[in-house]
Amino acid sequence: MHLYRTHTCGALTAAEVGQTIRLSGWVHRKRDHGGVLFVDLRDHYGMTQIVADADSPALAILEGLRVESVVTIDGDVKARSEATVNPNLPTGAIEVYARGATVLSRAEELPLPVAGEQEYPEDVRLRYRFLDLRRETLHANIVKRTKIISETRKRMEAIGFTEYSTPILTASSPEGARDFLVPSRIHAGKFFALPQAPQQYKQLLMVAGFDRYFQIAPCFRDEDPRADRLPGEFYQLDLEMSFVTQEEVWETMEPVMAGVFETFAEGKAVTPAGQFPRIPYAQAMLDYGTDKPDLRNPLIIRDVTSEFTTSGFGLFEKIVGGGGVVRLIPAPNTAGLSRKFFDDMNEWARSEGHAGLGYATRKAGEFGGPIAKNHGADKMAALWDSLGLGPDDGAFFAAGNEAQAAKLAGAARSRVGEQLDLIDKDSFRFCWIIDFPFYEWDEDNKKVDFAHNPFSMPQGGLEALQTQDPLTIKAYQYDMVCNGYELASGSIRNQHPDLMVKAFELTGLSQADVEERFGGMYRAFQFGAPPHGGMAAGVDRMVMLLCGVQNLREITLFPMNQRAEDLLMGAPSLPEPKALRELHIRIVEPPKG
Amino acid sequence: MHLYRTHTCGALTAAEVGQTIRLSGWVHRKRDHGGVLFVDLRDHYGMTQIVADADSPALAILEGLRVESVVTIDGDVKARSEATVNPNLPTGAIEVYARGATVLSRAEELPLPVAGEQEYPEDVRLRYRFLDLRRETLHANIVKRTKIISETRKRMEAIGFTEYSTPILTASSPEGARDFLVPSRIHAGKFFALPQAPQQYKQLLMVAGFDRYFQIAPCFRDEDPRADRLPGEFYQLDLEMSFVTQEEVWETMEPVMAGVFETFAEGKAVTPAGQFPRIPYAQAMLDYGTDKPDLRNPLIIRDVTSEFTTSGFGLFEKIVGGGGVVRLIPAPNTAGLSRKFFDDMNEWARSEGHAGLGYATRKAGEFGGPIAKNHGADKMAALWDSLGLGPDDGAFFAAGNEAQAAKLAGAARSRVGEQLDLIDKDSFRFCWIIDFPFYEWDEDNKKVDFAHNPFSMPQGGLEALQTQDPLTIKAYQYDMVCNGYELASGSIRNQHPDLMVKAFELTGLSQADVEERFGGMYRAFQFGAPPHGGMAAGVDRMVMLLCGVQNLREITLFPMNQRAEDLLMGAPSLPEPKALRELHIRIVEPPKG
Repeated sequence: MHLYRTHTCGALTAAEVGQTIRLSGWVHRKRDHGGVLFVDLRDHYGMTQIVADADSPALAILEGLRVESVVTIDGDVKARSEATVNPNLPTGAIEVYARGATVLSRAEELPLPVAGEQEYPEDVRLRYRFLDLRRETLHANIVKRTKIISETRKRMEAIGFTEYSTPILTASSPEGARDFLVPSRIHAGKFFALPQAPQQYKQLLMVAGFDRYFQIAPCFRDEDPRADRLPGEFYQLDLEMSFVTQEEVWETMEPVMAGVFETFAEGKAVTPAGQFPRIPYAQAMLDYGTDKPDLRNPLIIRDVTSEFTTSGFGLFEKIVGGGGVVRLIPAPNTAGLSRKFFDDMNEWARSEGHAGLGYATRKAGEFGGPIAKNHGADKMAALWDSLGLGPDDGAFFAAGNEAQAAKLAGAARSRVGEQLDLIDKDSFRFCWIIDFPFYEWDEDNKKVDFAHNPFSMPQGGLEALQTQDPLTIKAYQYDMVCNGYELASGSIRNQHPDLMVKAFELTGLSQADVEERFGGMYRAFQFGAPPHGGMAAGVDRMVMLLCGVQNLREITLFPMNQRAEDLLMGAPSLPEPKALRELHIRIVEPPKG
Repeated sequence: MHLYRTHTCGALTAAEVGQTIRLSGWVHRKRDHGGVLFVDLRDHYGMTQIVADADSPALAILEGLRVESVVTIDGDVKARSEATVNPNLPTGAIEVYARGATVLSRAEELPLPVAGEQEYPEDVRLRYRFLDLRRETLHANIVKRTKIISETRKRMEAIGFTEYSTPILTASSPEGARDFLVPSRIHAGKFFALPQAPQQYKQLLMVAGFDRYFQIAPCFRDEDPRADRLPGEFYQLDLEMSFVTQEEVWETMEPVMAGVFETFAEGKAVTPAGQFPRIPYAQAMLDYGTDKPDLRNPLIIRDVTSEFTTSGFGLFEKIVGGGGVVRLIPAPNTAGLSRKFFDDMNEWARSEGHAGLGYATRKAGEFGGPIAKNHGADKMAALWDSLGLGPDDGAFFAAGNEAQAAKLAGAARSRVGEQLDLIDKDSFRFCWIIDFPFYEWDEDNKKVDFAHNPFSMPQGGLEALQTQDPLTIKAYQYDMVCNGYELASGSIRNQHPDLMVKAFELTGLSQADVEERFGGMYRAFQFGAPPHGGMAAGVDRMVMLLCGVQNLREITLFPMNQRAEDLLMGAPSLPEPKALRELHIRIVEPPKG
């Protein structure tokens, strides 16, 4: 017989009744029924009920053990009485009568309970992560995470992608976040950087002729932690393809993402592959007030600027006259809601730093509120008709310069959707946001800068760069959005060295700068570079959505805390003086506070 | 029609004759046959012959292009004449008559040819790695590498292992090599370390109840480069199992490794799963003079110490009298070889720093050489008979203290095997080396230290640690060896906190030291730790063996050079002063040489 187990704790069913078996696992729970001890024995695979009665030598051993001790149980599989069968447990048809028990590891008193799901402070959970990870939900989330990644890999390989690992000790990259630096021992004063993304390497792979690359890639950014951004490392599904248009990237990746989501959505609806809406950036900003629209929310923002060119509502007339815009956010079927609902929304908008959120109520065709009163009931009714709004639909108004109004309208759309319970929580709604601007205005430095990836291809090519107002140039740049989250971002790349230089020149960098900073890529583009493009999807975000959690800690094995410390391993820590000498660096004490 | 291609360059066969198609790829070779141009167009998938004759507008375009430019070809698939069919090329039945050509990317003059396999200096290859990677053999090796890793993953998953990613920014680990350090921005003066191996995390995963872990894990050691050790990072197939004995680890992993090797061995014989010999360390040192025996070499070293307790050959008698040993390395069927062969072996041994390698020749039963002469022909004949050696078999002798003699005998066994061409090059011969010593004597510090992994379980447990001479204690520690290379190393772990403390105490560390250095693990073992064990296999070594190459550069995408520099990306590089300030460090200029 195996030294530790003939079966796992999730394996025994009625079919094994009568067998003499051996199990090993953790004492999950103990229940003493006066001389008979019931123990739930747990391992990775499940839970089995152990019974030790007064005749069993196991009784005394198990009685003396704390929960979470590890034991081996020798026993006989017996059918449970009909009354005690547990149909929710795979092993619920049986129990194991213990003949003997061997203690493999004795547990001290626990700093954190494993049975049950009560909240515990983060520092205890992270310091004792090995206990935290035994808890049912977190354990299941971690397993789900691994399955999602494995499924993703399989789907990528099935459509001809090959996984290549790119270097982790590399050069500083242009993603714009702060790099983690690694001092070189051999080259005094020089540093490696951990990759913020394998962007340059994957493009070099295309230039090297590898065609369809992917990688579940560790990425590193030394940014301050947030709930949705762990300090240190995160994972991307990174991919790149040669000889493709952006449409081909979309058509390739929709089945992968929809397929992975369908596999793990547990019955929730998923936008089918081939049906991801493709929404131009400008349209998204108009309709949803954001480039990350949550399409589970049915509300669409309407531009009603022209309605207020002349209006009895002077504020809007003035805003429109000054070049501003007015956006309307429908609030359908709100006839039954009190004035307070509308006033509270206005209060919320002010608390968020906006000037305020106007509104019009409507009940059985009658308008209410200052905008309607001043603008006039007839014009309001005509507007409502033209927008397809009904006699019991209210609306909110966001007015101001275009960027402000879009932002407020977008936030209001989300809030109205939530408050009116319009969001279909049982679905994953995907879309592409496309045609992003290539450049944006950098107000701090009073210059044009790249809006997204500097390696993207500008629409219109060299001619656009030479003749067009830079701020009007679009890029072959796209995001994949799901339920209001940016899940992936990508582009068709600029593989022409002259176009690369010109694109950077408009941001104030010279050809020499380009050669210095991106020398490898610039060089590569001189020797036959195929058209190529791709994207990178946030693995952590995919897993969070599919696990239905808001905090990365709930889907990450060994996260750091919000102060970027690993409490379990004790990192970061003080180095040996010898190590610093070898690395040619010295610590500068920060000024005392 | 697709913008770039209807087919890849490896796809067209006789079945497509008559079709109008589009291909994109690199101009691999051009041959001008007087008004007709033949172009080999290459992509990741293969090569297709393009023909542009005087009537084709493609002719002028293609004539003006350098090789490695990227083009799109529109053309018609035609059958080749019988005389020009190339049966070695998947597309060898057809050629494409170009109607038109579009240049996607023009190549400058190449610093490194892509067609052909001539040797090029390392610095050129690495600086222009994107060209080097287009070359046939390297391109194929990299693809093979990805397939080996993918196959390994599939086999691990198929037998119930789950892949978990462990942190890359972590604490210093006890593997004994030098860590790469990463300064913390938030915690002035503290550093993260990149993992030398996920050893502690994988054990913590077992304590957290995850049972069967694996990972294709990036590992980092700041060691000086060698041909078989790249600076920086390397990959391990890392795995760990709970509730296992060492036999179960072996039985689990033999099918994985044998299976992967069989898949990629291209017809070479592989030791079948279930038949890996298990050789105790002490036996391996005796029989092969090494713990990494190449079993393709049929020679077995014999201990003949007792033969020379009294001998006319005074040197051996003296060595044996002083506690030394004499080992015999057979040199079968060497009757026809000249004395020079034997003398050269002796010269080689001296050049390697040994005192010398004795020998005895034998031809038709007649012995030759000083050992035979002094020891006496009768005793030599009796010895030969007892060892099963024949009348035309010579032998070498390695004498000295046990460690010296084993080392020399092992090296001589390899050299004799090579020189006599006894090594079966068409096979992968696996074995396990088991029962490694737990401790070894650290001569520098005059103390007992761990021979291998400090987290391994000593055979005999606490009692052995308390009562046995530490240097005689064996560990549940094993290596997997293939063709003379250590392919993997592993052990059953010590999961008892008291045993852990005792094991470290014998090396001079206190309980407080253990808690400080390995606090996470020490803490974890207090709260229910399952028996567990596993191993880690060198992915790079597996790939090198299967690709038949000696240098990691031939199987690594973007290696650093031997000075630990990435010539392509320009790493390491000088940091921004602002970055150093944020990291609270200052560079110390090394003393000028």
